[in-house]
Amino acid sequence: MPEISKRGQKVPMSPFRKLVPYADIAKANGKHVYHLNIGQPDIQTPAAAMAAIRNIDLDILAYGPATGNLSYRQKLVPYYQAYDIQVKPDHIIVGNGASECLQILMFACFNHNDEIIVPEPFYANYNGFAQIADVNIRPLTCNIENGFALPPIEAFEKAITSKTKGIVITNPNNPTGAVYSQEVLEQLGALAKKHDLYLICDEVYREFCFDDTEFYSILNLRGLEEHTIIIDSISKRYSACGARVGAIVTKNEALLNTLTRYVKLRLSPPGLGQILAEASLEMESQYMDDVQAEYDRRRMTVFHRLQQMKDVVCYKPSGAFYCFAKFPIDDADRFCQWLLEDFEHNGATVMLSPGAGFYATPGLGKDEVRMAFVLNTDDLNEAMDCLQIALAKYPGRVAKQEILAEK
Amino acid sequence: MPEISKRGQKVPMSPFRKLVPYADIAKANGKHVYHLNIGQPDIQTPAAAMAAIRNIDLDILAYGPATGNLSYRQKLVPYYQAYDIQVKPDHIIVGNGASECLQILMFACFNHNDEIIVPEPFYANYNGFAQIADVNIRPLTCNIENGFALPPIEAFEKAITSKTKGIVITNPNNPTGAVYSQEVLEQLGALAKKHDLYLICDEVYREFCFDDTEFYSILNLRGLEEHTIIIDSISKRYSACGARVGAIVTKNEALLNTLTRYVKLRLSPPGLGQILAEASLEMESQYMDDVQAEYDRRRMTVFHRLQQMKDVVCYKPSGAFYCFAKFPIDDADRFCQWLLEDFEHNGATVMLSPGAGFYATPGLGKDEVRMAFVLNTDDLNEAMDCLQIALAKYPGRVAKQEILAEK
Repeated sequence: MPEISKRGQKVPMSPFRKLVPYADIAKANGKHVYHLNIGQPDIQTPAAAMAAIRNIDLDILAYGPATGNLSYRQKLVPYYQAYDIQVKPDHIIVGNGASECLQILMFACFNHNDEIIVPEPFYANYNGFAQIADVNIRPLTCNIENGFALPPIEAFEKAITSKTKGIVITNPNNPTGAVYSQEVLEQLGALAKKHDLYLICDEVYREFCFDDTEFYSILNLRGLEEHTIIIDSISKRYSACGARVGAIVTKNEALLNTLTRYVKLRLSPPGLGQILAEASLEMESQYMDDVQAEYDRRRMTVFHRLQQMKDVVCYKPSGAFYCFAKFPIDDADRFCQWLLEDFEHNGATVMLSPGAGFYATPGLGKDEVRMAFVLNTDDLNEAMDCLQIALAKYPGRVAKQEILAEK
Repeated sequence: MPEISKRGQKVPMSPFRKLVPYADIAKANGKHVYHLNIGQPDIQTPAAAMAAIRNIDLDILAYGPATGNLSYRQKLVPYYQAYDIQVKPDHIIVGNGASECLQILMFACFNHNDEIIVPEPFYANYNGFAQIADVNIRPLTCNIENGFALPPIEAFEKAITSKTKGIVITNPNNPTGAVYSQEVLEQLGALAKKHDLYLICDEVYREFCFDDTEFYSILNLRGLEEHTIIIDSISKRYSACGARVGAIVTKNEALLNTLTRYVKLRLSPPGLGQILAEASLEMESQYMDDVQAEYDRRRMTVFHRLQQMKDVVCYKPSGAFYCFAKFPIDDADRFCQWLLEDFEHNGATVMLSPGAGFYATPGLGKDEVRMAFVLNTDDLNEAMDCLQIALAKYPGRVAKQEILAEK
């Protein structure tokens, strides 16, 4: 039998889907599972977007341009302008979701064995994309005590080696919900310029900033047009994860040329998804207001409930729709599996994402979990009921003191 | 300014799109361009498929399973059965077109610097996919004199080195239209087994076999379940290139597990495209009969017209919708550019794909071109009128004798 490649043997299992078989069994046994484990919102896709699909007037679904339909890229210009991001259609390359965008970007920007600095916890699949591109992630650990703010700029500078070629951040952050200020991003930009690094920001949660938190895009950093690149996606903002429409936006012409050669190899991004994406930009303005208000309610629901749970360490996330909390448990992988296999409350249980998968540093996140606020507040409250009772009953519960002692 | 990666600098420009700027200028100047350069058919997508999109009943376009919607994979089982290919839904992984499928497959099967044997001329983007995966293509040259039949099995065996891990073929072939017999495929299978190689076959033109040529899938080779993998796509058979729905099909369980980890990283294939693909399987049976008859007419039109052109070497392709011909010209790149820039007949010209891009061996294909039969026979005849007159007028025309003398 021919062998699986060495890299294929090492490619990581997405931690988002590792628990799926246990959830399937729980459901087959009649248990209701509240899914807080994956960023799949229950929010409706904009009606205008679905209507555009129902009204589609095409006889042939042909290849489109490799970099995305021009009409769509043109309409993205005013969309970005509303966020003070000044770009032209030629600065935008449409991809198969943010995933493909980040993967191609790694090939275009980094050589084999180059290093990128990524604050952890980070979106777990970055590990896989980096591994495919033979790029090494150098993690910089953030802490729950300050709501997972970025480490001081000195820590970034100290992490730079001769191999470092880029810094990759997610703003607003998945999995922590942290939002980075203009001041912090300016410091990162100055550092990127000083050391000639790419500064890549995954901004797919741009719409979701709460309280007085203001979103600031790295594309607005002056004099950094050749260093800054954003990754985007319609999946979260329009609740259209299945459309598979993402984008790379940069003003670096050499990079755009290189990326264009990459995307031409795979011919074109999804045609129907792009029609939906374009129509999404014409939705009623009320849509986003409603969605933002709904996520804010959910955020506060989860935060208040977690605050009431004994020995749970949490904070109020400023953005995105996630919270990363510390539980009084021995091992989050075991706890999350136990929730699905051995626990139920009123015929239901809750599915969470164990924290370790979001860290590159071994041993971190063992008592942490990510929760996605992708259910309505009634369901979220039911899920929090489950969680509260489960934490009390879990055989692997440890006292808060023990966790602190471990540090 | 941060540097483009070394690999990014080397990633090849798709030869399909290199001439596009010249075509754009020609069209801006009012010239009609007959596009025989790209495999984008003018055939309509099945009405049932477009109707399924118009009747879509979804409020949320959510992530689907990473390996593709189960309902779609289930319906592919009888589709493959009609070709005597016996597979289960779990043997199928749905991807973003054949392009993503081949790319992932290279990562899963091959290590850095492994070699694959690929008969040339081959689908030009294989070069790019191999380069991204750091896999080296070892080409085996086929010849126009026998209609680009595969080289004898001894030539394949001779090309195997300690680095060789796979053989990649396209059947029916793009760009040559050659179709490989069961006997030839059995020889290849025996060789793959003997040397423990993956045997990968891109079968996206399965539907298009003409005259008495019978399609035979490598998945039917006995005792080769762990060696054989097919790449598939709905783009050509349903004229749905923009849907971006392809597939990998294999019975190799270890490989399926590895591929599943890869596809989970990018979450899911296009949701709307999969709905269209599933509905395509329910089209009226008349659709494919009509499409096949239409391509057959086109094939014969081009073949007869080329036969009448002085010093053009051609053959009757058995499958797919391409012909690869040898012209009495100095350089096909120059000729194709000249057609767009300097030639017109009745206000029109023709766009072709220069042959060199389909070869890995430098210097080959310089006087060859690929023509795609993607226009109706009236348009094809007009395009052939252009070509016939252009070949007579082209300043770089060379006599047939000179070409032969070059050998």
